[in-house]
Amino acid sequence: MSTSTPSALSFTETLSLLSLALASFGIIANTFRGDGEPLIASLAFSGIAYAASYAMIRWLGPTFMKAGLKGKDMSKVHKKEIPETMGAVCAVVYLLIIIVFIPFPFYKDIVAATSGGGNRDVVIELEHVQTGRFLHRFPHSKLASYLSAILSLQSVSILGIGDDLFDIRWRHKFFIPGIASIPILIVYFVDFGVTHIVIPIPLRPYLGGLFDLGFLYYVYMAAVAIFCPNSINILAGINGIEVSQSLVIAFLLILNDCFYLLAPYPHPATDSHLFSLYMLLPFIGVSLALWAHNWYPSRVFVGDTYCYFAGMVFAVVGILGHFSKTLLLLFIPQIFNFIYSAPQLFRLIPCPRHRLPRFNARTGLMEPSVTEWQYPPKPIVALFLKMLHHLHLLRLATNHEGQITESTNFTILNLWLVWFGPMREDRLAIELLVMQTLCGLFGLFVRHNFALWIFESDNWTVR
Amino acid sequence: MSTSTPSALSFTETLSLLSLALASFGIIANTFRGDGEPLIASLAFSGIAYAASYAMIRWLGPTFMKAGLKGKDMSKVHKKEIPETMGAVCAVVYLLIIIVFIPFPFYKDIVAATSGGGNRDVVIELEHVQTGRFLHRFPHSKLASYLSAILSLQSVSILGIGDDLFDIRWRHKFFIPGIASIPILIVYFVDFGVTHIVIPIPLRPYLGGLFDLGFLYYVYMAAVAIFCPNSINILAGINGIEVSQSLVIAFLLILNDCFYLLAPYPHPATDSHLFSLYMLLPFIGVSLALWAHNWYPSRVFVGDTYCYFAGMVFAVVGILGHFSKTLLLLFIPQIFNFIYSAPQLFRLIPCPRHRLPRFNARTGLMEPSVTEWQYPPKPIVALFLKMLHHLHLLRLATNHEGQITESTNFTILNLWLVWFGPMREDRLAIELLVMQTLCGLFGLFVRHNFALWIFESDNWTVR
Repeated sequence: MSTSTPSALSFTETLSLLSLALASFGIIANTFRGDGEPLIASLAFSGIAYAASYAMIRWLGPTFMKAGLKGKDMSKVHKKEIPETMGAVCAVVYLLIIIVFIPFPFYKDIVAATSGGGNRDVVIELEHVQTGRFLHRFPHSKLASYLSAILSLQSVSILGIGDDLFDIRWRHKFFIPGIASIPILIVYFVDFGVTHIVIPIPLRPYLGGLFDLGFLYYVYMAAVAIFCPNSINILAGINGIEVSQSLVIAFLLILNDCFYLLAPYPHPATDSHLFSLYMLLPFIGVSLALWAHNWYPSRVFVGDTYCYFAGMVFAVVGILGHFSKTLLLLFIPQIFNFIYSAPQLFRLIPCPRHRLPRFNARTGLMEPSVTEWQYPPKPIVALFLKMLHHLHLLRLATNHEGQITESTNFTILNLWLVWFGPMREDRLAIELLVMQTLCGLFGLFVRHNFALWIFESDNWTVR
Repeated sequence: MSTSTPSALSFTETLSLLSLALASFGIIANTFRGDGEPLIASLAFSGIAYAASYAMIRWLGPTFMKAGLKGKDMSKVHKKEIPETMGAVCAVVYLLIIIVFIPFPFYKDIVAATSGGGNRDVVIELEHVQTGRFLHRFPHSKLASYLSAILSLQSVSILGIGDDLFDIRWRHKFFIPGIASIPILIVYFVDFGVTHIVIPIPLRPYLGGLFDLGFLYYVYMAAVAIFCPNSINILAGINGIEVSQSLVIAFLLILNDCFYLLAPYPHPATDSHLFSLYMLLPFIGVSLALWAHNWYPSRVFVGDTYCYFAGMVFAVVGILGHFSKTLLLLFIPQIFNFIYSAPQLFRLIPCPRHRLPRFNARTGLMEPSVTEWQYPPKPIVALFLKMLHHLHLLRLATNHEGQITESTNFTILNLWLVWFGPMREDRLAIELLVMQTLCGLFGLFVRHNFALWIFESDNWTVR
């Protein structure tokens, strides 16, 4: 097996990763001497995250396979077994990095608040310092929310690993991210507890400027936390699509963050977007390392752990940063895929174990996979299917009596193949990613140009 | 396999667990109506923790075995396979309970600090409230340290599960708790950063009343965090010993906590010991459930996950509660076992893969296991071994030339069998637990009666 999945790094790889790691360590050491700029440190930590994940994914391959964490790539001529659940490695590296990073956003506060010489005697003055001279700094009071974010990410990792190990049933695993979101909800309740939302201008005459959602606000946060990981988990099945879509979303979120950081300070949302960057930069680090191994043709699989983990990073950033509506604008293809999948997910229509596109070994191309109807569907279902077929949202095959014999599976991947014909696996992934990027850019454009029409000011969040 | 490890609960078990869970839920609901007494809620949560762990350990047995998490009980006539790593179930239940518990210690603060009606508008006054009327309450400012404790416990669970899955080498896994202790060290650095220790009276003329350990204080905390889990992990090998010793330590810690809670308030250490109780009560809940399945004859194994997890609970409680020296007094047998094991652990003397006592299938009793010397040991080693033999700390076998041919393995379990002869597995466990309890009670007695001779006042901690 060691010949089919080499677990050693090449000389060039070793050299590059080592250089990257050393450069990153150098930058971090330098931030201690300067003014301890956390954003620079975060970038450097992301470099270390990339190097560490890249090396560990390679080294741990045989170990994972020995422990039974392996899978067959169905969409290849030679269906060899490769390591599975490699997202767990990314998650562990990410969590360690993000924990070690904790002191950096607070470094200046500590130094400024002591009388020097390592004394911590005037720590009580922290708050004055923070609201006084160092307004640019990430506020110390947000430590609890940062910790709760890590707790939720750890929870989703533990539960995700459990899912990959035990293959939990779909109707149970759907709620895994919900359980993992409990830490952020609880700490939100204890530490902030703001459940007001800003009412769009057209509705103000009826509801007033602010509306207290109360308990429903927590339901909303939990729903976002359940949606993001699951929506990534069901837009899956071809090499590299899980990591790539997560990277696209992460880069678009960072683009959005940059709008706020480049705006004249102090903008009320700057802290939220600094927090977002601190969480997303190391995520991009570990994800790129995984991407390098998971892109077509895959040498490792990511596992459900990665999908949950990635989705939870976005959910945490959106919830704690109070921009979950903007977040959802970047999930347009996932939202479409989720709604489009619903008839199969909720078993209104038969759902096979796997719905990934079918690999045609003769042409080497991916084709839409189908569900075969052994008995013709009920009239109402048949009507619904035929309607979708006419709207070009499905492809049906009928027998000579006009009865439906098979229908393509309800995923955006199959629909794309229905629209644009059979294509190679990586081509399909690239086209979807381009579509995801364009949708996201459009979403951000709308949000930053037209939000003022329905809200009073851009991002006047209640925090 | 389902016949050998039945995974269903009996009717009596179902009824008892359900009653316990319902009663606990009732109590928790009641604390909302009263003054939200967190200690009562913690007790009730522990009841739920017990019921949930008990049921899940039973239900998940076949699932764990299917995923390859199983082991053979070597000390039985019929060496059947039973589920392994069941400590992971306890850890997950514990973590969920301890996260859901977060609002309870802060409940009163929130209610008192708002203007009612769900408003959180005067949250800024929290600190006045906390130091004013509600001195008995667990202070809100400790939220970060509570969260960091959970982070460390989650980290050790993830790494422990990794260890159980991949069978990490001993010299690597030794540092797992060290990595998992990073969250508490980091948050300690960011949030408190007090690294002074109180100097014992006899040393004051030389060192002064307080001494700043600085960086070394973090090394000390990491050492405690590395020692506790590993010392439990190496005092293992017979049915029930890992869970039982953890339960003994937990009960002794609770006894110690009670001394402070029953003392006239305000005692400066009361908060630390409330924190300790909040962490330990649910731990006892999940551990008792595991104990019921793991005691002789075992129906499940606990796995390294449990040992790391249990040790980390104690380390976290001791470190964040600033009573790590008292904690170590309860680890006397573990400390002895660790020092006694050192020659084998550090390979000064050959160390077989397993050092657990040997099961004699003819008598059904446990006997000391031995390391066979194929070549006679070096003169210096032989001298050392013979010295230990004369001190009754080892049993040697020699050939007719007086050369050492075998020596008993260096664990307290084997030594106990050398001293008191072969005995049945459960008898051995019970005798060791009685010894552990007596040592711990003696330790607490010394600590509370003689500490005043070397320190100014009982538990005048720097916090």
